[in-house]
Amino acid sequence: MDEFELIDAVVAALGSATRGPGVVLGPGDDCAIAALPPDTELVSSIDTLVCGVHFPADAPGEWVGHRALGVSVSDLAAMGAAPLHAIVSVTLPPERQPWLLDFARGMGNAAREMGIAVVGGNLARGPLNIAVSVHGIVPRGQALLRSGARPGDRLFVSGTIGAAGLALERLAAVPPIGTLRRLGRDDPFVRYCLPAPRLVLGISLRGIASAAIDVSDGLLADLGHVCHASGVGARVTGEYVPIAAGAALESAVRAGDDYELLFTVPPAHLAALEELAADVVEIGEITAETGIRLSRDGSDVVLASAGYRHFS
Amino acid sequence: MDEFELIDAVVAALGSATRGPGVVLGPGDDCAIAALPPDTELVSSIDTLVCGVHFPADAPGEWVGHRALGVSVSDLAAMGAAPLHAIVSVTLPPERQPWLLDFARGMGNAAREMGIAVVGGNLARGPLNIAVSVHGIVPRGQALLRSGARPGDRLFVSGTIGAAGLALERLAAVPPIGTLRRLGRDDPFVRYCLPAPRLVLGISLRGIASAAIDVSDGLLADLGHVCHASGVGARVTGEYVPIAAGAALESAVRAGDDYELLFTVPPAHLAALEELAADVVEIGEITAETGIRLSRDGSDVVLASAGYRHFS
Repeated sequence: MDEFELIDAVVAALGSATRGPGVVLGPGDDCAIAALPPDTELVSSIDTLVCGVHFPADAPGEWVGHRALGVSVSDLAAMGAAPLHAIVSVTLPPERQPWLLDFARGMGNAAREMGIAVVGGNLARGPLNIAVSVHGIVPRGQALLRSGARPGDRLFVSGTIGAAGLALERLAAVPPIGTLRRLGRDDPFVRYCLPAPRLVLGISLRGIASAAIDVSDGLLADLGHVCHASGVGARVTGEYVPIAAGAALESAVRAGDDYELLFTVPPAHLAALEELAADVVEIGEITAETGIRLSRDGSDVVLASAGYRHFS
Repeated sequence: MDEFELIDAVVAALGSATRGPGVVLGPGDDCAIAALPPDTELVSSIDTLVCGVHFPADAPGEWVGHRALGVSVSDLAAMGAAPLHAIVSVTLPPERQPWLLDFARGMGNAAREMGIAVVGGNLARGPLNIAVSVHGIVPRGQALLRSGARPGDRLFVSGTIGAAGLALERLAAVPPIGTLRRLGRDDPFVRYCLPAPRLVLGISLRGIASAAIDVSDGLLADLGHVCHASGVGARVTGEYVPIAAGAALESAVRAGDDYELLFTVPPAHLAALEELAADVVEIGEITAETGIRLSRDGSDVVLASAGYRHFS
């Protein structure tokens, strides 16, 4: 297939995922067009998966397509945004064409699950590389930022932490996509391969959380980003961190890719959070003193490194 | 530098280019935030430059940064959109860190020239690959689509065609960035390395042009996209095509990367186009009969291939 035939095949594989509320014009023109409701703001991010860095070269297209969309959409969840659309750029060697269609099917399924439309993209020849630009909407001024945490705010995390890290150690053992789809959210392979961004939670935290981030670099590293942006520190009580089955505290707090939400709540909003009855756990507190202290049984836990960093 | 230090250095190299009208929140959070004026639509595209495919491995970062932004912004021009913001993902090997800062400076200069803010991005480790997602705004319903051309509409192109193609044949001879910046828009190297998207023209064609596209794949290939989307054909009069100095018709109509606008105008709007006094030339006509015919001195010109296609 040449470039334009391949684009048509990808659009066909995406199916109904190219359409959605707010989408005025989908794939096929120089740009896609979307309409935003009045009094909203546009929230935008981009994330990239590199073959051999973010997924093994022999990973099936179905889960890489799901994961590529999920990791980007998780940034929308962290802002409290509702998904609008995604635009995808794939660089691939010619022999990857069949893989690309599996990728598009996986991304189409993920898009329908997450309620986001895939409205455009670009294909080019080169080493396999996937960039996904995602866009969402929030009521004006209501986005959850990293910079809003204040001393005395309580620190919460959703779900469990460390599952994706367990999968990362044995990606060669990922079951076939059909099996994967039947496993639960907390299965390590599902967590890593088919991430389910916390969109509903993010939206419900508007007006409640003072700061939020998704756990992508690792709980301590991401908490570090919040503290840095907010000019504060934090104390984390290790016993309270909801560790995934089979994981250890030391590795779980450094593992990335869980795509849970880490957020802070001022004391005055704790009752509102309670009413959400959300799957979240209080794990610590924001402090005026900078730096992050992780304790267990009353003693500080000393860690070699805080989380994954490219280039270090 | 580790990932987060490098991001800080890139943001510093971009300078004032990270700010702009409509930008509510720039780099540093999970997402950027923008505000759109009332009664407008969001117009979005993504384009990728792959090292060794879209630029030579030894190309200086300054012009690759300019070019990476320009080729994407040109898609906004083709829609008649005003630029809002860009989000950039760069995958690079660690030894490219100094190059990346040159790239960021080049992109920052280009962003200021084009009036677009660079508000976010992503860095990852891997083979050098640059994806630029651009976003613009148009008054509701006024975007210029590929699909609006009708039989009898006149066909126009801006500026000259074929200059970038001349540069592509001798990229090893590109002068240093300082020299490049002093040359004019029609210089082949400037056209290729420092593209200047036709934003003002695109915006002024709202309500005048029935269809538009930017010349990126090649004049005939891009005309083919318009004809395909509109269900029409076209006749192009070779003598009227504004060929760049030193180029031949056959190569110019197949050369890509000129980033001029190709557009159609219904007869009723020709007077309005005339009033713009724009740098555009009428080169043909849209026909009910499908297929594209290029003539010169009254005879059809037969071409081997219509333009650049990845994977073919």
